[in-house]
Amino acid sequence: MREISGAIKVGAEAYLGRQYRTISIIAVITTALLAVGIRDPTNAWLGVDTAAGFLLGALCSNLAGYIAMYISVRSNVRTARGAMTSLDRALKIAFRGGIVFGLAVVSMSLLGIATLFLIFNGDPRLIVGFGFGASFAALFAQLGGGIYTKAADMSADLVGKVEAGIPEDDPRNPAVIADLVGDNVGDIAGRGADLFESITGENIGAMLLGIAPAVYVMFGINGLIFPLLARGFGLIGTFVGTLFVYSRKKEDPFTSLTRGLIVCGIICAAGFYFLTVTLLNGDMGFFYASLVGIFAAVFVAWITDFYTSYRRRPTLEIATASESGPAPGIATGLAVGMESTALFIIIIGVAIMLAFGFGNGFISGVHLDLTDPAFQKGLYGTAVATMGMLSVTPMVLAMDGFGPITDNAGGILEMSGIPEEAREISDRLDSVGNTTKALTKGYGVASAALSAFLLFSAFLEVVGLKGVDLARPEVFTGALIGAMLIFLFSSLAIKAVGSTAAVMIIEIRRQFKEIPGIMDGTAKPDYSRCIDISTKAALKNMIAPSLLIVIGPIVVGVILGPEAAGGLLMVGTMVGVLMALFMNNVGAALDNAKKYIEAGHLGGKGSAVHAATVIGDTLGDPLKDTAGPSLHVVVKLLNTITLAVAPLYLLALLH
Amino acid sequence: MREISGAIKVGAEAYLGRQYRTISIIAVITTALLAVGIRDPTNAWLGVDTAAGFLLGALCSNLAGYIAMYISVRSNVRTARGAMTSLDRALKIAFRGGIVFGLAVVSMSLLGIATLFLIFNGDPRLIVGFGFGASFAALFAQLGGGIYTKAADMSADLVGKVEAGIPEDDPRNPAVIADLVGDNVGDIAGRGADLFESITGENIGAMLLGIAPAVYVMFGINGLIFPLLARGFGLIGTFVGTLFVYSRKKEDPFTSLTRGLIVCGIICAAGFYFLTVTLLNGDMGFFYASLVGIFAAVFVAWITDFYTSYRRRPTLEIATASESGPAPGIATGLAVGMESTALFIIIIGVAIMLAFGFGNGFISGVHLDLTDPAFQKGLYGTAVATMGMLSVTPMVLAMDGFGPITDNAGGILEMSGIPEEAREISDRLDSVGNTTKALTKGYGVASAALSAFLLFSAFLEVVGLKGVDLARPEVFTGALIGAMLIFLFSSLAIKAVGSTAAVMIIEIRRQFKEIPGIMDGTAKPDYSRCIDISTKAALKNMIAPSLLIVIGPIVVGVILGPEAAGGLLMVGTMVGVLMALFMNNVGAALDNAKKYIEAGHLGGKGSAVHAATVIGDTLGDPLKDTAGPSLHVVVKLLNTITLAVAPLYLLALLH
Repeated sequence: MREISGAIKVGAEAYLGRQYRTISIIAVITTALLAVGIRDPTNAWLGVDTAAGFLLGALCSNLAGYIAMYISVRSNVRTARGAMTSLDRALKIAFRGGIVFGLAVVSMSLLGIATLFLIFNGDPRLIVGFGFGASFAALFAQLGGGIYTKAADMSADLVGKVEAGIPEDDPRNPAVIADLVGDNVGDIAGRGADLFESITGENIGAMLLGIAPAVYVMFGINGLIFPLLARGFGLIGTFVGTLFVYSRKKEDPFTSLTRGLIVCGIICAAGFYFLTVTLLNGDMGFFYASLVGIFAAVFVAWITDFYTSYRRRPTLEIATASESGPAPGIATGLAVGMESTALFIIIIGVAIMLAFGFGNGFISGVHLDLTDPAFQKGLYGTAVATMGMLSVTPMVLAMDGFGPITDNAGGILEMSGIPEEAREISDRLDSVGNTTKALTKGYGVASAALSAFLLFSAFLEVVGLKGVDLARPEVFTGALIGAMLIFLFSSLAIKAVGSTAAVMIIEIRRQFKEIPGIMDGTAKPDYSRCIDISTKAALKNMIAPSLLIVIGPIVVGVILGPEAAGGLLMVGTMVGVLMALFMNNVGAALDNAKKYIEAGHLGGKGSAVHAATVIGDTLGDPLKDTAGPSLHVVVKLLNTITLAVAPLYLLALLH
Repeated sequence: MREISGAIKVGAEAYLGRQYRTISIIAVITTALLAVGIRDPTNAWLGVDTAAGFLLGALCSNLAGYIAMYISVRSNVRTARGAMTSLDRALKIAFRGGIVFGLAVVSMSLLGIATLFLIFNGDPRLIVGFGFGASFAALFAQLGGGIYTKAADMSADLVGKVEAGIPEDDPRNPAVIADLVGDNVGDIAGRGADLFESITGENIGAMLLGIAPAVYVMFGINGLIFPLLARGFGLIGTFVGTLFVYSRKKEDPFTSLTRGLIVCGIICAAGFYFLTVTLLNGDMGFFYASLVGIFAAVFVAWITDFYTSYRRRPTLEIATASESGPAPGIATGLAVGMESTALFIIIIGVAIMLAFGFGNGFISGVHLDLTDPAFQKGLYGTAVATMGMLSVTPMVLAMDGFGPITDNAGGILEMSGIPEEAREISDRLDSVGNTTKALTKGYGVASAALSAFLLFSAFLEVVGLKGVDLARPEVFTGALIGAMLIFLFSSLAIKAVGSTAAVMIIEIRRQFKEIPGIMDGTAKPDYSRCIDISTKAALKNMIAPSLLIVIGPIVVGVILGPEAAGGLLMVGTMVGVLMALFMNNVGAALDNAKKYIEAGHLGGKGSAVHAATVIGDTLGDPLKDTAGPSLHVVVKLLNTITLAVAPLYLLALLH
């Protein structure tokens, strides 16, 4: 077990090392461009400040990802060992690995923002670069990791399971270690970077709205400190919640995790009450707004579960349709993914409007705009709701990290030839991990939608626009381009997985052919070559889509003006949220339809229906683990980038 | 051959008869609701006028679809007979069948609008109901026809080809006639209704912009007559263009059709020149705007061809990826569909901005809004560009109708056991038909995007908004709901095909089992029962998605106000255009990847790669022929419906 875990550790460290090197090179170039390119007549140092913030943001993001990976590659083997003793032991080890991950990500963000807040004397406009840096690094980390993990997974399955007929996680498969490494660099380091920039972006957006005149008059500096302290309560809630995660006897591990989350949520709510009383003049509207955010998170989790669990109607429909063949099954899967957006969007819409209403006391005024105090207070209400939703982030991240750790533990046990009983415990934890992974993704999209609305308002504030009017041809065009960028990015991400997997497939086939004795176990496959090849290919393929998202909004804003950039931002965000939901849920539902068949229904393993659902599952992989999660990051990157380069747009306007 | 064609005729007439009866019932209820519900303090008769227009619009749309079907079920057998003589003869018969279709659709729209224009004394605001009626009937026709045709196609393939192992269009398959009927009711009557409402909506939108103060001051009533006369030139161009469609010796039929289209385009351009000089004070900007529209149509056709033809990179990528299995092939197909939106969106954006600029002489003024004369003139420029693009509609429709007619002819020949040579000619025409069908869809989406921009501006004009500001929470929510409606509608449409096909599959299997002698040809299957069953199921399944699109915007507008309805409209339109493109092109590319394999590449028919592409093709069917084309209609229906019920929103605003 140590040997296998050691190989995973070496592979993951090697990948992340190279990935961060690649990101560093691009980040340094971008830093230089920002320092030179961003000019503001009123502040000669704006470019340099933004650039410095950018570099720090990228650095913190990478560091958080690295810490997360460091912990997870050490927790996996311990979880495997724990599973040989008891469920409670394995659950606690895996979950505590996740907790370190969650706390590292959140405190790194808090540390970075608080430091800059002190350095820049409380002016949040100068911290924008930090958010951009965080999103920038996150996009590469999530996309690169996503490409790596799914290319390894797909190629291992296609050559190993389908062509050679050996089971999953079989040590004879040359790509098996690469597959396990992928869980750590894609799911752990990638999702960590994703939520790192979510909370960072939300903090900065809320602080920017805190300096809106009407809010600043009421709360002064308190309105800016509020988001930071709210985050602190989330950390406290997580400490306490952790104590409630244990498994007595036969208790479902999912129940244990949920108990921890509920405790964390209650402590966060109490924290918001306390902060509202002490910092926001006891204006209870803002406390209610925070509750709106917390409840929205709960609803979103419920919807995700409904659309992707195989005990529910949607996934069962896919399984039934697969009886007529793979095409009807996949078509139903696409339909389920599309349908899943409906309730989600309604919840987000209602949450935004409610929080806005709580913020300004439900002043009805259809003719308000950004310059009105009531509008600014309403926006601060949506900011507080976003804080509410994101307050439980460390706990959610812990649940998310739990998934890949137990997945890895299962792989290690399987490869070490450990007897069945121990694997039963790890299998149980693994299936809970699948659920928590899906829920975190739903949570990730919801927080992306809310923080995007926040950052969008902050963008308008910064560029001095009253609104974004879609009836103008250039704004309409910008908005169309925003929607299109999401489609184009998704296309490139899916293709990147395909082309990386294609390189891997050739290598795996070569090893099966050229290394005699692999199949009867007398010779070991060359794992490290597979890792090396997919590392190179993933890093190469992550660059083009990422640059598209970075350069697109800058070009549109400079050529068509800030309002067109606003259109791009807003519609890009909406389409990004919908497509992310669609792809995440298609993938998860197709995956679970397969699991349903494997649980022995409709013919079970080995039947034609099973073969049909396996095709669907493989198709869903790049959607749910590469393109979908990367879109969460894209949505926020679009916002932080336009915020950071806003001075450029204003300059273009003057010409 | 007469017998088979007779069976198709009876089936198509029976389906359309029942479909129109269903639509009539819903339309009459809607008419009553409109007459009672729409109130305007300044015009007591507005509700009744709108309702009357609505009913006439729905009627004309259905009539146009019926004429188209009437001609096509009579041309198919003649084309089949012609194919036994010569290519030229078959081409001419099929194309002239298509021409009747094109002319019927366009002149029916022109007749309806011109009549109402005279009755309502030149006030285009009262003609809005006609446009709503046209869109309303079109949605049911396109969706119902689309469900029918794909359910028949999928079930015939799944049971006939896959389970029973008999070839396509084999007379032993009980669903074969239903499949051929589907071409007529889905592709012919459905697409006819789609473009009927496109040109109707565009005409009405252009007339509404013609009464904008700045435009009316310049051109008076001429600005309203211009769109009608432009349409007339399109008819003349089509008459002349038809004369150029013939096939000398071995000429590619596609070349013949393109020649006809070019001639038609040149005559239309000349017509715009003439009309600009005589009606628009010789302001050449508007002539250039019309050319922008015509060229945009050409580019869009080129892009569609590039992304879906198997001589090009994208479709070949799918074929290559399918070598690793169906999942990588389909994933690449989805990626190609997403990628195909990029160039298209850029062309549409550039066209709108150029036309706007030509309209107002490129006055640079970022602070214009709808009340500014320069803005109104710019909008009229985009209206003229839309007219330009839509001027060649009758010719495009003829090319579109050509497809299903030759497809039917091929089926008739196959079923009649006619010798190979004749089938060679019909196969050649059929493959050209596939190309023209794909091109018309691209053209349909492009015209939907342009006319939606037009109708959106008209909507703002009517409800008296200066713009739609996405920074307001209720507008943001409305916009999110608009995007979501598109996803939900697509989901329902795809599922409707699945559940209709499921009913059919059971019936086909039953016949194979219970009617002895079907397989050896001694007994005939019960074709009419299959037709009957899929008719009922298609009509039942078309209602929910259609009502969603009708009721959604009304509810949002009444609850959240006209600006939120505007947000829904605009973002719904953008997402609708993108999703339509995505689904159309995914389907066409997957279809052609299969054709590429069938042409003998990468293993050819019967290989594993072929099986993989067959799965992709089946998956693509409901996307490209049901959900995608229905979205063209949805995009315009969203616009005409909000226009028609605008007084309701204004009333809600007063409360």
